[in-house]
Amino acid sequence: MDNRLSFDYNYLMSDFVKDGITKEELAGYEKKVAQICDVLDAKRKDGINTLTAWMDLPYSQDAIVEDILSTADAIKAKFDNFVVLGIGGSALGPIAVQQALNHIYYNDLSKEARNGCPRLYVIDNVDPERMEALFDVIDIEKTMFNVITKSGSTSETMSQYLLARDLLKAKLGDKYIENIIVTTDEVKGNLAKICKDEPFKKFIVPDGVGGRFSELCPVGLLPAAVCGIDIKAMLQGAAIMDEICKEKNLYKNPAAMFAVQQIIAMGKGKNISVMLPYADSLKYIADWYAQLWAESLGKKYDNDGVIVNKGQTPVKSIGVTDQHSQVQLYTEGPSDKVITFIGVENYRASVEIPGGYDDIPSLSFLKGHTFNELILSEQYATEYAINAAQKWTRSITLSKVNANTLGQLLYFFEMETAFAGELMNINTYDQPGVEEGKNATYALMGRAGYEAKKAELDSKQPKKAEFVIG
Amino acid sequence: MDNRLSFDYNYLMSDFVKDGITKEELAGYEKKVAQICDVLDAKRKDGINTLTAWMDLPYSQDAIVEDILSTADAIKAKFDNFVVLGIGGSALGPIAVQQALNHIYYNDLSKEARNGCPRLYVIDNVDPERMEALFDVIDIEKTMFNVITKSGSTSETMSQYLLARDLLKAKLGDKYIENIIVTTDEVKGNLAKICKDEPFKKFIVPDGVGGRFSELCPVGLLPAAVCGIDIKAMLQGAAIMDEICKEKNLYKNPAAMFAVQQIIAMGKGKNISVMLPYADSLKYIADWYAQLWAESLGKKYDNDGVIVNKGQTPVKSIGVTDQHSQVQLYTEGPSDKVITFIGVENYRASVEIPGGYDDIPSLSFLKGHTFNELILSEQYATEYAINAAQKWTRSITLSKVNANTLGQLLYFFEMETAFAGELMNINTYDQPGVEEGKNATYALMGRAGYEAKKAELDSKQPKKAEFVIG
Repeated sequence: MDNRLSFDYNYLMSDFVKDGITKEELAGYEKKVAQICDVLDAKRKDGINTLTAWMDLPYSQDAIVEDILSTADAIKAKFDNFVVLGIGGSALGPIAVQQALNHIYYNDLSKEARNGCPRLYVIDNVDPERMEALFDVIDIEKTMFNVITKSGSTSETMSQYLLARDLLKAKLGDKYIENIIVTTDEVKGNLAKICKDEPFKKFIVPDGVGGRFSELCPVGLLPAAVCGIDIKAMLQGAAIMDEICKEKNLYKNPAAMFAVQQIIAMGKGKNISVMLPYADSLKYIADWYAQLWAESLGKKYDNDGVIVNKGQTPVKSIGVTDQHSQVQLYTEGPSDKVITFIGVENYRASVEIPGGYDDIPSLSFLKGHTFNELILSEQYATEYAINAAQKWTRSITLSKVNANTLGQLLYFFEMETAFAGELMNINTYDQPGVEEGKNATYALMGRAGYEAKKAELDSKQPKKAEFVIG
Repeated sequence: MDNRLSFDYNYLMSDFVKDGITKEELAGYEKKVAQICDVLDAKRKDGINTLTAWMDLPYSQDAIVEDILSTADAIKAKFDNFVVLGIGGSALGPIAVQQALNHIYYNDLSKEARNGCPRLYVIDNVDPERMEALFDVIDIEKTMFNVITKSGSTSETMSQYLLARDLLKAKLGDKYIENIIVTTDEVKGNLAKICKDEPFKKFIVPDGVGGRFSELCPVGLLPAAVCGIDIKAMLQGAAIMDEICKEKNLYKNPAAMFAVQQIIAMGKGKNISVMLPYADSLKYIADWYAQLWAESLGKKYDNDGVIVNKGQTPVKSIGVTDQHSQVQLYTEGPSDKVITFIGVENYRASVEIPGGYDDIPSLSFLKGHTFNELILSEQYATEYAINAAQKWTRSITLSKVNANTLGQLLYFFEMETAFAGELMNINTYDQPGVEEGKNATYALMGRAGYEAKKAELDSKQPKKAEFVIG
């Protein structure tokens, strides 16, 4: 199939890099991978309890998709701006998909050039400067706010919600209800409760779908649909990849294979995973992946309660840009990385490099070539150079970037993460390490019930002036 | 002085983290740091040959600044868009400064709200989709293109130049000259040569100033001035920091101290440097720093020709956003990082969180607080939590973000990098590791003189189909 992604790991193998992976090492994982396929299959059947209900998303959403599409049409007819209020998994997916599938300067286009779709803003921080700046550039009357939080208790998102609601009420009175859509739990949490009194249009974050695995549920699908993206094709792509990643044969299952390679790499001290797309459209896939990989695999305890302090640090990169920033380190620095190229065979534009300056050979050689040839040559050349430096790279290639291939790519990374978590024997789906900071924030903000934490903060050994300069 | 940056390394020290740095370890570097101050002072005097002429930039540019300011005024009067064609150091600085000092949605503002300044686009890639997209959103007649490349032979930038020039000529005839400004070498290279026949307005990249150290020369100052930024204050800030970083006493010199700490950290296996600003305005400082740190310190050989494969990998992060993405890994994962918070005491906006929902305690506690309190509490709480997890953090605090403090911050990182390079005994200012990829690109693009490289590429052992899935 033309649309099918390709996964190339030649330059991880000992055939091509001195300290590379051997066929024997891979063979040692054959049985384990087949077992994990069974484990994941069992978890899939109990998705709500095992937090693997994201595996159902490619199949279970026909009615939801229709609701999203008709809601999106209504939004397009009435609003100029669509503002996502969300953070983490509620923001990174929508940003990545928008960048991948819409015009790179989408918000700068006229509404006509946007096919009538609203501008998109994703507000994933609580910086007061940004909050103020947002309201400088949108007419709130013509703005739909999509508040996304499963629990309804995410302080950042709920603060934003309170602000947007307050401004809307001041401007629109009771009609403010029409300018807010919530995406939250079906019954639990603050937002679900609020919806009983304030009848906002509501979409559900399904049970068993964690934030970082939520792009293919209404969290991501609504913003995408509102901006004209073919969400059915995204889900079809995810379903294609799901079938591929059920394969028990390690050598035919890219998610299992890529996960196994990362486990081997971590064992050899490669504690950094660089994501290096060669397309501006895929730039924020690296950000989305960074959450998925870091939060899923960065764990103190394994499933047996042993302290392991595992996790590989994701690094967001972009070609060709980072050839002028990071590639010096990648070629000459320590062998502490797995670098994953994401390549595109066919860009959605073809732009010629005009000629000129026949008397300047170091310029005139560009004549007759396209930017397409230039970026593809640079990608090939960089892969070549990093391999020549005996560092570890592999690559994923999309024939072109569209909703289908993007759905495949997102789902692939989710499955790679799922396999990696099982191989590492850790809980892929929790994030206990953020509780301490959350609770300390509550304490500092004076939330009832956090008085003991506040006392703990107050009794902390004070910093020493001798360790401060300036 | 109110504006002065503060540098806090309490949470790197063994007083606060178990495996932390001891006072004795720091003391061991006192003499070395004093010696390096002498080395840097000597290099400063021979800046052109030692590639440390960037140390003069805070002092040497009075006439240049006047030229930039009057040029910027002329541009504002005539143009709606200012497009930087550049990559690496020619792009990362302009992006970082614009984000730090101008409105976060600057390009979305009306020209009036931009004080008459043009929109800014920095085109730092050759993705054909992006090249096409750019010309969808700008009227080239009303656009000034700033082509930035010292050598005039950077393929990416010169391809962009050829395209812009071709389009401008087709639209404006001979008047295209007025829509291009070049920033390049004074006498050497293609662009300097071209300027003899095509009388573009030209600014100089001074000798002895490498790309990643060029933000405070016309490379960065012109785009900043065009967008209304106070470049004199930036240079004043840099001069303040320069004085501070001449201090031979390790305990009073933040650049030396922070560099020493990174060297100690690398020695203890902390091969990752996370830059974690708590302000959207400072987000792209992390990108700019990533080039500076990676390209300067990621080196195969030391100054004695010994193979060392050194370098610490920079990671770009942003608070509070990444608390929902990376902090799980930072607290629970391996102790392989130094995390540098960048904090802001006083944001340039103050936004209240409105009340509501007195019956929902997990919401109503937000009432009466500001977004300012929320982000500062989260920063404090995150620093607390990561310290509680016994991971290494330190922090830089700006009283507020303005041109002066930003100049200090940029110059500080340049000096920290300079000290680190001396401590590591490597060449901080070259980038030999990118030559292989550049030459391979030339070969693939058919540039004369690269036939041998092309033959080498063609004779490379082909990839094996067995290591490809899909």
